[in-house]
Amino acid sequence: METKERKVAVAVDESEESMYALSWFLQNLVPDNHQNTLIFLIYARPPPAIYSPFDAAGDLFSSDVLATVEKYSKDLADSVMKRAKEVYQNFHNVKIEERIGSGDARDVICGLVDTLGVDVLVMGSHGYGFIQRALLGSVSDECAKKVKCPVLIVKRPKN
Amino acid sequence: METKERKVAVAVDESEESMYALSWFLQNLVPDNHQNTLIFLIYARPPPAIYSPFDAAGDLFSSDVLATVEKYSKDLADSVMKRAKEVYQNFHNVKIEERIGSGDARDVICGLVDTLGVDVLVMGSHGYGFIQRALLGSVSDECAKKVKCPVLIVKRPKN
Repeated sequence: METKERKVAVAVDESEESMYALSWFLQNLVPDNHQNTLIFLIYARPPPAIYSPFDAAGDLFSSDVLATVEKYSKDLADSVMKRAKEVYQNFHNVKIEERIGSGDARDVICGLVDTLGVDVLVMGSHGYGFIQRALLGSVSDECAKKVKCPVLIVKRPKN
Repeated sequence: METKERKVAVAVDESEESMYALSWFLQNLVPDNHQNTLIFLIYARPPPAIYSPFDAAGDLFSSDVLATVEKYSKDLADSVMKRAKEVYQNFHNVKIEERIGSGDARDVICGLVDTLGVDVLVMGSHGYGFIQRALLGSVSDECAKKVKCPVLIVKRPKN
């Protein structure tokens, strides 16, 4: 009898906490028969809205500036996914897919969790960007309240 | 090579949410080799302090009343553990131990998690008693913030 595939979403960002959460989950809660587990790495790029074509003085940004910001955002996403790969590459049989959304991290994470129909969402406890954290409070707290599936919040030990 | 035993604490109470959390964890995140997983069912009885020997009018409660309250608290603990057993009895090889503490649910849960050195704490999202919930806010929220280990918060689907 084949067991149903289990879908897991791990929210990753540039924080050590999110990489630790991914690593902890793989080490501790992925059963030996990895074949039945599909892990989605989900990442939220900042919403395009914050790249206003106007700066504070109302002048139009040049397309060069916009292209630079766009490139920076793409590089950041690539770098996060690359770091995640360093974490999961030792778990040979685990199936991993990347999903990159654009927008507010909470909306992207909760939206993808819904759309992908995941069984459990894994998050670091203080992840999702120091700017968003400072401005908006803890993304993981809010996602834990909002999503319908079980949520695993992994804290990185201090030492 | 023997793998390290994994210790899991599941906080149970009289709520359906906590029983669902136990069941969901057993079904979804306990690997096939149950032998390496030890599950502590932890339950907090109300603190003895709420059984004041004086009632609102300042009269001393009779020892009969105190005995009745004590018995009610014990019966409630027994009933919760009995319901939990109905949930876990189908998972034949899983090792379960009961730990009943006395006091504020948050202190008992966080304290036991520390003392027992558990690797992950599993809680229902709205559990731990309707009185405490109303008076003190969500126990699971606070435990998730306080304990050092990863916390899995399981929501019971609406349907």
